[in-house]
Amino acid sequence: MIPRYSRPEMARIWEPENRFRIWFEIEAHACDAQAELGVIPHAAAKAVWERGQFEVARIEEIERETRHDVIAFLTNLAEHVGPEARFVHQGMTSSDVLDTCLAVQLVQTTDLLLAGLDRLLNALETRAKEHQATLCIGRSHGIHAEPTTFGLKLASHHAAFARARKRLVAAREEVGTCAISGAVGTFATIDPYVEEYVAKQMGLTPEPISTQIIPRDRHAAFFTTLGTIASSIENLATEIRHLQRTEVREAEEYFEEGQKGSSAMPHKRNPILSENLTGLARIVRSAVTPALENVTLWHERDISHSSVERVTAPDATIALDFALHRLAGTIEKLLVYPDTMKANLDRLGGLVYSQRVLLALTQAGVAREDAYRLVQRNAMKVWNEGADFLSLLQQDEEVTAALDPDALAACFDPSFHTQHVGTIFARVFKHERV
Amino acid sequence: MIPRYSRPEMARIWEPENRFRIWFEIEAHACDAQAELGVIPHAAAKAVWERGQFEVARIEEIERETRHDVIAFLTNLAEHVGPEARFVHQGMTSSDVLDTCLAVQLVQTTDLLLAGLDRLLNALETRAKEHQATLCIGRSHGIHAEPTTFGLKLASHHAAFARARKRLVAAREEVGTCAISGAVGTFATIDPYVEEYVAKQMGLTPEPISTQIIPRDRHAAFFTTLGTIASSIENLATEIRHLQRTEVREAEEYFEEGQKGSSAMPHKRNPILSENLTGLARIVRSAVTPALENVTLWHERDISHSSVERVTAPDATIALDFALHRLAGTIEKLLVYPDTMKANLDRLGGLVYSQRVLLALTQAGVAREDAYRLVQRNAMKVWNEGADFLSLLQQDEEVTAALDPDALAACFDPSFHTQHVGTIFARVFKHERV
Amino acid sequence: MIPRYSRPEMARIWEPENRFRIWFEIEAHACDAQAELGVIPHAAAKAVWERGQFEVARIEEIERETRHDVIAFLTNLAEHVGPEARFVHQGMTSSDVLDTCLAVQLVQTTDLLLAGLDRLLNALETRAKEHQATLCIGRSHGIHAEPTTFGLKLASHHAAFARARKRLVAAREEVGTCAISGAVGTFATIDPYVEEYVAKQMGLTPEPISTQIIPRDRHAAFFTTLGTIASSIENLATEIRHLQRTEVREAEEYFEEGQKGSSAMPHKRNPILSENLTGLARIVRSAVTPALENVTLWHERDISHSSVERVTAPDATIALDFALHRLAGTIEKLLVYPDTMKANLDRLGGLVYSQRVLLALTQAGVAREDAYRLVQRNAMKVWNEGADFLSLLQQDEEVTAALDPDALAACFDPSFHTQHVGTIFARVFKHERV
Amino acid sequence: MIPRYSRPEMARIWEPENRFRIWFEIEAHACDAQAELGVIPHAAAKAVWERGQFEVARIEEIERETRHDVIAFLTNLAEHVGPEARFVHQGMTSSDVLDTCLAVQLVQTTDLLLAGLDRLLNALETRAKEHQATLCIGRSHGIHAEPTTFGLKLASHHAAFARARKRLVAAREEVGTCAISGAVGTFATIDPYVEEYVAKQMGLTPEPISTQIIPRDRHAAFFTTLGTIASSIENLATEIRHLQRTEVREAEEYFEEGQKGSSAMPHKRNPILSENLTGLARIVRSAVTPALENVTLWHERDISHSSVERVTAPDATIALDFALHRLAGTIEKLLVYPDTMKANLDRLGGLVYSQRVLLALTQAGVAREDAYRLVQRNAMKVWNEGADFLSLLQQDEEVTAALDPDALAACFDPSFHTQHVGTIFARVFKHERV
Repeated sequence: MIPRYSRPEMARIWEPENRFRIWFEIEAHACDAQAELGVIPHAAAKAVWERGQFEVARIEEIERETRHDVIAFLTNLAEHVGPEARFVHQGMTSSDVLDTCLAVQLVQTTDLLLAGLDRLLNALETRAKEHQATLCIGRSHGIHAEPTTFGLKLASHHAAFARARKRLVAAREEVGTCAISGAVGTFATIDPYVEEYVAKQMGLTPEPISTQIIPRDRHAAFFTTLGTIASSIENLATEIRHLQRTEVREAEEYFEEGQKGSSAMPHKRNPILSENLTGLARIVRSAVTPALENVTLWHERDISHSSVERVTAPDATIALDFALHRLAGTIEKLLVYPDTMKANLDRLGGLVYSQRVLLALTQAGVAREDAYRLVQRNAMKVWNEGADFLSLLQQDEEVTAALDPDALAACFDPSFHTQHVGTIFARVFKHERV
Repeated sequence: MIPRYSRPEMARIWEPENRFRIWFEIEAHACDAQAELGVIPHAAAKAVWERGQFEVARIEEIERETRHDVIAFLTNLAEHVGPEARFVHQGMTSSDVLDTCLAVQLVQTTDLLLAGLDRLLNALETRAKEHQATLCIGRSHGIHAEPTTFGLKLASHHAAFARARKRLVAAREEVGTCAISGAVGTFATIDPYVEEYVAKQMGLTPEPISTQIIPRDRHAAFFTTLGTIASSIENLATEIRHLQRTEVREAEEYFEEGQKGSSAMPHKRNPILSENLTGLARIVRSAVTPALENVTLWHERDISHSSVERVTAPDATIALDFALHRLAGTIEKLLVYPDTMKANLDRLGGLVYSQRVLLALTQAGVAREDAYRLVQRNAMKVWNEGADFLSLLQQDEEVTAALDPDALAACFDPSFHTQHVGTIFARVFKHERV
Repeated sequence: MIPRYSRPEMARIWEPENRFRIWFEIEAHACDAQAELGVIPHAAAKAVWERGQFEVARIEEIERETRHDVIAFLTNLAEHVGPEARFVHQGMTSSDVLDTCLAVQLVQTTDLLLAGLDRLLNALETRAKEHQATLCIGRSHGIHAEPTTFGLKLASHHAAFARARKRLVAAREEVGTCAISGAVGTFATIDPYVEEYVAKQMGLTPEPISTQIIPRDRHAAFFTTLGTIASSIENLATEIRHLQRTEVREAEEYFEEGQKGSSAMPHKRNPILSENLTGLARIVRSAVTPALENVTLWHERDISHSSVERVTAPDATIALDFALHRLAGTIEKLLVYPDTMKANLDRLGGLVYSQRVLLALTQAGVAREDAYRLVQRNAMKVWNEGADFLSLLQQDEEVTAALDPDALAACFDPSFHTQHVGTIFARVFKHERV
Repeated sequence: MIPRYSRPEMARIWEPENRFRIWFEIEAHACDAQAELGVIPHAAAKAVWERGQFEVARIEEIERETRHDVIAFLTNLAEHVGPEARFVHQGMTSSDVLDTCLAVQLVQTTDLLLAGLDRLLNALETRAKEHQATLCIGRSHGIHAEPTTFGLKLASHHAAFARARKRLVAAREEVGTCAISGAVGTFATIDPYVEEYVAKQMGLTPEPISTQIIPRDRHAAFFTTLGTIASSIENLATEIRHLQRTEVREAEEYFEEGQKGSSAMPHKRNPILSENLTGLARIVRSAVTPALENVTLWHERDISHSSVERVTAPDATIALDFALHRLAGTIEKLLVYPDTMKANLDRLGGLVYSQRVLLALTQAGVAREDAYRLVQRNAMKVWNEGADFLSLLQQDEEVTAALDPDALAACFDPSFHTQHVGTIFARVFKHERV
C-alpha cells in the first residue's frame, strides 16, 4: 500500500523485519519442542535462542543467489548460530514457516483493526449520546420522511461497527492457526506435538488438517470480512457526504485552520475525507474476489495463491486500518449544525407530520379514506404553493370538524417521534466488547 | 434461478405462496401484540387469525392496479377478514413486513443449506473413513511429492465444510432479525414490544436499531459467506476433475447405465458434474460484490438494494443448495480406483521417497550436503532414464557405505507417511455439529 | 431474469423457441454447404428445409430420456424430416451448434441493446438541447462550485452513452463468430467451407481457430462491456436521485397521476426508478467476474462455463435492456425545474462567482495574494452571516479601489460561464452512429 | 506493486519524476497556447520552457505544508521560473493537470503492454510453427478426445492474445484524452483552444465534454480490458500447468541450471512460473470491480475515484506488464516433449479413433445405430481390459464384414486429424498488427 494510506504501526507488520522475527520465533519454538521430544539436542535449541539473529540485508543478499527466501533466512541464521543450526527446521517444509507466519501477521493486523474499530465505536457512542435528542429529518429515498435525531443516525452506524467487530473477532479465530505438518501435511517427518507446541507459543490454534498449507477458505473468510467492514465504512462516509452538501449542510468535516478547499474558489469546503473513505472501501473490497478465487488449489497445494496474498494481504489490512482511523477522526471532530437540522426539518412547511395528522383524524373517527383525502388536499397546497401545513389544516372546516386547532397543533410536535430514542439507545449501547 | 439448477424445496421458499404466508404471519402476530397493548381490539386480532386468507392470483391482480405489493396483499386479506382488517398493519411500514419476511426466508434457506452441508459432511466422512488407509500420491504443484491417503484428501475437505457450516450458522444469526419500527425506524407509531413479540413468534431476534430497514451489512455478511462456501465446493470439484483426467484416473464420477459421454466418441466419461459445480460456484459468488455494494444506502433508506435482492437472494441460495446436493451425491457415488492410485504412486520409480532417503543418510552420519548430492545423482538417473530408484541406490557404493540395502529398502515403505493419519482423523472427526 | 425486470422482446431471445429456431437454421445451412461439397445429397438438404420442424415440448420430452439437448432436438427434427435426417449434423459436434447459437443470440441481444441505447441517446439529446441554456449550479464534492447549464449535464451523459454504443458495436463483433470445426476444433470431420458458409448465412464471421468451442475471452469482453455500460447507467441514475432530493429538487421523475409515493406520507415523491436503476446496474455488473473466470478452460474445452452462461447471459442482457429503456423513459419524461435551479444557484449569496472576482482583481493589477485576501474576507462574511457577496464587495474600499461597482457587478454574470456551451454541444452532438 | 512483480520500465511511469515531468509539459504547452491566444505574454511561455525545472524532494517538502500536490509543484516551478511563473496554470484547475497526466501515463503504460503482448505473440507464433505438426491428444473435460497438434494449441492462444492486442489498442484510444476545461468543465476561464493544443502536443485527443474531470467510464473500459487480458494469461498458464503435471508431462517450464524445485524432494520440478501467473491474473482482475464502481461520481465530480486509481492504476498495469513478459519468457523457453505426447496419444489403445471408425462403418453402409453398437462393444473391452482397439475390431466379424482390416487400420491414421492444420494456421497468422 502506498504510504499516503498507511499507518506505520500497520505497515510495520508487513515489513521484512517483522516477518523474519516471526520466522525466527517459529523455528526456535519448534526446536524447543523437538528437543523435548528428543529429536534434537537441548543444547541446539538453547543455542538458537541465545545466538539466533538475522539481518534483513544479508538475507536478501543470499536470496538473490538461492532464489528461496526460507533457505536464505536459515543460511543467515546459521551464520550466527553456528553448527547447531543444522538442527533447525528439521522435518519441516517452507510452508510450515510461511503459512504459520502469515497467520501470526493476520492476527497482529486484526488486533490493530480491532483497536481502530474501538476508536471508531467510542467516537460514534460519544457523538451519538451528545446528539441523542438533536432533532433532524429522517429521509427515505433522499426525500424528507419523518423526524428522527442525529444521535439515532450515529447509533445505527455504531450498531453496524459493533457487528463488524464481532465478525472480525470470528475472522481472527479463523485465520489464527498454526500448521507444522511437513510435506503434503502427513506429519511423516515431524511429530504433531511440535505443531501443538508452536501454536501455543505463538498464540495460535493447531490446524486440524493441513495439506502442507493452511486451507485458503480461512483466508477467504477473513478478506470477505474486511470487505464487509469496508462497506460499512462507505455507508457512513456517504452519510457525511450527503449531510455536508451545500443544500443540506447539517454537518461538516472539520476544516483545519488555513486549509484550502480550492485555490480558485475560496468558499469551498469539501468532504474530501469521506470521499476518500469511499474510495478506500473499494480498495479493501478489491481483495475479496481474489481471496475467493484463491481457495481452489490443485491437489495438496499449488502456489497460485501466493502472489495474490503478497499484494492483497498488506494492501487490504493497511487500507482498512487507515480508513478506520480516518473515519474515527472524522466523527470525533465532525462539525454538527443543529440549527440547520431544525431549519431543514421545517423546510416542507410541516408536511413531515402528515402521517401524524392522518392517524389523529382516523382516531377521531374519520374514515381512513376521508382522512387521507383531507390530508392530501392540504398537503398538495403546501407542496405546490409553499404554504404552512398546520395553518391550512386549521382553516379547513372539514378537518376542524374532527380535530380542533390545538389538537391539530399537537400533531406537529416532534417529540412524538423521539419517544423511543432512549429505548433504542439502551439496546445499542448495552454492548460489551469481546 | 433456472429450473435446471433448482431443487423444489429451496425454490419453494422464494415463491409467492411462501412469501405471502410469512407476511400473513407477521401481520397476525403483530395484531396479537397490538391487542395485548390495548392498541387494537382482541376481537380484531382473533378475526385475522380465523378468517385471514389470501390468494396469490388475486393479490397480483390488485397489484397491477395499485403497483404496491404490500397494499395489494392487505387489500386481499381484508376481503377475507372483513371490517376488522382496518386494524391490521397499524403503525407499520411496508419495510417492516418486507424486511422481516426476507429474514424469515433467509433463515429458511439456511436451514436447507445446513441440511445440504450435513449430507455432504456425512458423505465425506463415510468415504474418508472408507479410504483412511488407501495410499495415493500427494501432489504439490501438480507434481508428485510424497505419499498420503485418499482418506486424508477427503478429510481435508470435510474440515473445510465443517468450517463452512460454522460460518453459515453465524450468518443465519446475522440475518435472522425482525424489524417492526415504523417510518425511519423511530417506533413513533408502534411500540417496540410489537417487534419483540413478532420476533419471538417468527423465530428471529429483534433488530436493535433499524432505520425503517434492516441494515444491509447483515446481508453482505450472509452472501459473502455463501460465496466462501461456493469456493470450497469449487475446490473439491476441481480435485475430482483432476483425479478423473485420463492420465490420472484415480477416481471417477459415477456413470449412469446408458449414459453417453459423447455421441461421437463412445469412450468418453467426462467429469461433467464437477465441471458444472465449478460453474455453479461462480454463480453463487456473483452475489458477493452486489451484496457488498448494497450496504451503502442513502440516509435512513433507499431502495437500490431491492432489485438486487429480488434476483440474487433466490439465485444464490438456490444454486448453492443445488450444488451442495450435487456434490454430496457425487461424493457418495464416487468411483475410487485404489489400484490406479498405487500404480501412479510408483510411477516415478520410487523418487517420491527421496526425502526419506536423504534423512536416513543424514541420520546415519552423512553430512547433509553430501547426502543431498548422493540422492540427487541417483534421482537424476531415474528422472532421465526411467530406472528404479531403490536399485540404483543399492548399487551406489557411497550410499551403501552409510546404509545397507535393507535399510535403504525400509525407506521405501509408504506406511512411514501414514503413521499419523489416525491422529489427524481424530482431530477432524471429533467435531460436533451445532 | 424475473419478469419484473424483463422486456418481452429481449426475453424472447432466450426462450427455447428461439434457440431451437437458430439450431435449425445452423443445421439446415450446414446441410446446404455439405451438399455443395458433395458430402451429402442435395435432396437431403432440400428435405431439411422443406420438412424441417420442431416442437419445444416434444424436444423436452426426448431430452428427459436422453439427457442431451442437441440429440433430443435432432431426434425431433428427424421425426419430421424422415430418412434424410441422417445427413443432418454430419461431422459436427454439439458445441458447433451450441456456441454458434449463443453467438447468434448475443448478436440479437446486442441489436436490441443498441436500440435501447439509441432511444436513450435521443432522449438525452432532446432534453440536453431543450436545456442547453438552463442555468444551474455545477457541484464538485457535492458543494456548489460554479455555474453550468442543465443541458451540459445531460450532454456529458450523452457522450458517455455514445461511447457505450461504440463499445457495444465492438463487443458484438467480438462475439459474433461461427465455429463449426468438429471435435477439438481440427475440422477433421468437416470441411472449413461449411463454417464459412454457415457464418455468412447467419450473419457471423468464421472463428479463425476454435478448440471445439469458441474461446471465452470473447464473451468476457462482451460481458465486461455490458458491465461498463451498467456503470454509466448508475452514474446518470445517481445524478437524478441527487437532483430530486428534497433540499435540491431541481428535477423529478415523472409522477403518474394517482401514483402513491407512500401510503402513510402523502407528501412523498421518491426517485424509485433511479434507485431501481442503481440496483439493476449491480445486477448487470455481477456477470463480469464470472465471465472473467470463465475464460480459463482445461485443454481444448471443459464445460464449467456453461452453467454460468445459462444464467448470466439471459440475466445480464435482459436486465441491461430493461434498464436502458427504464432510463430512457425517465429522461424523456423528467420533470425539470429551472426556477429551483436558479434559486439554488443564488443560494450562496453570490459566492459562486468568487473566482471570477479574484481574476478580475488580478487583471486589474492587484497582486494575487492581496486579491485572494480581499475576496476571502468578504466571502467569509457571506458564509458566516449569510450576507450578499456583491454588496459586501461593493462596500469594501480596498476592493473598489481596483474595481468600480459596475465592474464588480459584471463578475456576477452567469453568462460568462456559459460562453462555450455551444462549442461543447457541437463537439458532443456531431456524432454519427454506426 | 511490490518490486518482486515489477519491471523497472513500467514502474518508472508511476514514479513522481515521470508524473511531474508530464505536469511540466502540460503546463508549458498550455502557456504556449495561452501566449498564442494573447492571454499571457510570449516571454512568459518562453521562460517556462527555458528555466522550468523541479525537484521531487522539494515538491514533497512544500506539499507537506500546503497539502496540495499541484500547488506544491507550481510553487517549486516558480522558484525556478521566477516572476513569469504567475502566468502558469492560468484559468486551469488541478484536475486539468491531474487527469491529463493520468491519460498520458496510461498511454505510456499501454505502449509497454503492447510491446509485452508483441513479445508474447512472437513467442507463440515461433513455437506454434515449430510444433505445427507435433501430434498430441486433444482433451475435452480433461479426457482424451481426438488427436490435434501442439502447434494448434499454441495457435489458439496466439489468436486470443491477438484479440487482446486489438482490445488494448481500443482501450488506449478510450483513455488517451486531454481535458483542460476549468472548473466544472465549462471552459469559462480557459479557451477550448488550449485543450486542443495541449492534446496535440501530448499525443492525446481532446475530451469532447468533461465535467472538470475526464469521465470514468473510459477508465472502466481500460481496466476491464486489462482484466480480460489477464484471464487469457491465466488460461495459457493453466494449460502449461496441466501439461507439466507428473502424469502428463508433455511440456515443462525451463528449469535453470542449479535451480531447486524443493530442498527436501530433489526430484521436483514445479510449474511455479505458471502458478505465479495464475495469481498475477487475479491481481490484475482485482482492479476491475473498483474501476466499475468508480464510474458513478456525484454531480460534476467528486474525488472518491482518486484513492482507488492511485493504488490500482500502477498495480494493475505493472502486474500485467510483468505477467506478459514472464509468460512470454515461459513460452520462449518451454521444454516440449513430443515423445511423451505421442505416448499419451496412444495411451487409450486407439480409442481416440473411435469416431473415425464409426464414420467409416456408416460410410460403408452400416446403419448408424448398428455402427455405434459395434464400436462401443469393442471400445468397452479396451476401456475395461486395456486391450488394443484396432486388433479387437479386426477380430470382430460383424465389423470386418463391412470394413476389411486395412480399411480399419486406415482409421487409426492421425494425419486424418491434422489435414486442416495448414488452413487454420493461415487464418491465425495472417494477422497484421496495428
